[in-house]
Amino acid sequence: MQRLLNKPENYVDEMLEGLYAASPDKVTFVNDDKRCLVSKYKKKGKVGLATGGGSGHLPLFLGYVGKGLLDGCCVGGVFQSPSPEQMLNVTKEIDQGAGVLYIYGNYGGDIMNFDMAKDMADMEDIEVRQVIAGEDVLSAPKDKADKRRGVAGIFYVYKIAGAAAEAMKSLDEVERLARKTCENVRTVGMALSPCIIPEKGKANFELPDGKMEIGMGIHGEPGIKLEDLKSADEIVDTMLEPILQDLPYKSGDEVSVLVNGLGATPREELYIVYRRVSQILKDKGIKVFNVYVGEYATSMDMAGMSISLLKLDEELKTYLKMPFDTPFMTQNQL
Amino acid sequence: MQRLLNKPENYVDEMLEGLYAASPDKVTFVNDDKRCLVSKYKKKGKVGLATGGGSGHLPLFLGYVGKGLLDGCCVGGVFQSPSPEQMLNVTKEIDQGAGVLYIYGNYGGDIMNFDMAKDMADMEDIEVRQVIAGEDVLSAPKDKADKRRGVAGIFYVYKIAGAAAEAMKSLDEVERLARKTCENVRTVGMALSPCIIPEKGKANFELPDGKMEIGMGIHGEPGIKLEDLKSADEIVDTMLEPILQDLPYKSGDEVSVLVNGLGATPREELYIVYRRVSQILKDKGIKVFNVYVGEYATSMDMAGMSISLLKLDEELKTYLKMPFDTPFMTQNQL
Repeated sequence: MQRLLNKPENYVDEMLEGLYAASPDKVTFVNDDKRCLVSKYKKKGKVGLATGGGSGHLPLFLGYVGKGLLDGCCVGGVFQSPSPEQMLNVTKEIDQGAGVLYIYGNYGGDIMNFDMAKDMADMEDIEVRQVIAGEDVLSAPKDKADKRRGVAGIFYVYKIAGAAAEAMKSLDEVERLARKTCENVRTVGMALSPCIIPEKGKANFELPDGKMEIGMGIHGEPGIKLEDLKSADEIVDTMLEPILQDLPYKSGDEVSVLVNGLGATPREELYIVYRRVSQILKDKGIKVFNVYVGEYATSMDMAGMSISLLKLDEELKTYLKMPFDTPFMTQNQL
Repeated sequence: MQRLLNKPENYVDEMLEGLYAASPDKVTFVNDDKRCLVSKYKKKGKVGLATGGGSGHLPLFLGYVGKGLLDGCCVGGVFQSPSPEQMLNVTKEIDQGAGVLYIYGNYGGDIMNFDMAKDMADMEDIEVRQVIAGEDVLSAPKDKADKRRGVAGIFYVYKIAGAAAEAMKSLDEVERLARKTCENVRTVGMALSPCIIPEKGKANFELPDGKMEIGMGIHGEPGIKLEDLKSADEIVDTMLEPILQDLPYKSGDEVSVLVNGLGATPREELYIVYRRVSQILKDKGIKVFNVYVGEYATSMDMAGMSISLLKLDEELKTYLKMPFDTPFMTQNQL
């Protein structure tokens, strides 16, 4: 894989300069720090929503900042956590008097830094709550669900919490809905190739031709095992089973489905994957409410994909249906 | 590159089955042929817009079928033209009494087949016009502009014509606006890697590590020359110059910019590219009206990108601002 870049050490900041230049009406930054990204859309009295995490996962994380989703994002280096100070800067900027909710993935560095930012915000009398998304079923067993990594399914937590905040729900309510979404979303991923981190210039792990790894994380965290590449249908069968067992599901349930590309896998193949997902769900009597197919949480130029299911009830559907608009994607009212 | 597929010969049809399953409210097919894709959105008396071309370029071509853009698309095999009969089927379905406009890229097979479809439609008393997009500056010199390939800039032709048709303009008017858009859009592309066609299972051309090719087409058509990989800024400088010279541009002009990823290149890098585009345009006094950054015309898992500029006037801006909604992307009113 060859890259379009200038100096590798400027990769993240030049990407941000490009984004601010491309979307001057939608996003900006605070404290003269490009990595403290905030939405230009503001609404007095609305709960502020912030996220953050390493770069290299676009549209995760900063691509979810915009009307109907999040208000701010702290941008780390490639696969690196942003700092507590950056998180505090964003927090202060997006607080509209109703408190701030942090939503981020279950990774040690992020937890440590968001915890510190929360403490600092407390001292400035900003009420901060935290919801940590961890829905990667194969990253830890069910009795250790709090160890599970956060991956593409975090999109649903942003979506539901973002819509609730936009509907002027209280911090308690937005937090409750974010937690409820976490409880109802499950993801399994798989990789067909590693990716190359710009500053390192080499693959972050080995994945030989003809092999795949189901359960692999978006930073190359090990999956179940390295095994021979199978057909798309067999792969989907293997991935969907642990998702459906974990919650569990029964006939008559309703879901939203997210088929997420990790970077290099063509959209064509994500639809081949969804084809099989829809067949399995139909066989089990599970109704599909809506579907997202595309790149929602990538890993540079990694080939592979993940499947996320959000189990819905009427309340979650109400918020899922609401529109959003960011520089990366737009949803009309469903 | 490894692929998610079942049998390579089913790649396109299974992709389509996945798409129809994922977007049952938006798209369907006619004549029991999945490759004859039409929008479920219909408006009596509206000019019908159709396109078509080979698969492997999503969201091109079928991803542009939806409200505010196109009404139908004929889907070929990977990098292969669809048939005249398929085009006729789509034409008959989308004709709402105001005639049909074909908009497609400047490739021999497509021209031959769309010409035949037009003749067959004439015999069924459906008035059909054609606009062939060819805006790849480096694929032919200015005095042979009719030989230029159609690449990502065709998005703008769909956008303007789609908005005009939605605004209930006549076939004459929609055709005029589509031609005007073609006259004002220019693209230059570059490749960092080849792609692998599923049924062939090997790269469609050679592009060694450390090399790039500016001017390369989306099927691997040769560019200017194979040369050493340069910095992103140097690459953008080299690409933008022939675009700006060709039209030409002067200070005070206004443009829309499309930075298109070919498949494997991360969105991060497309923003690094746009950063430099915006600097150059600013230096030249060219105003940016709006920007699209993402995947608009891909080539499977090819790494690389293209830059398109559409020179705007008040009329084109009016139609560019209008919203659209397809299974692949949504634009709110700008």
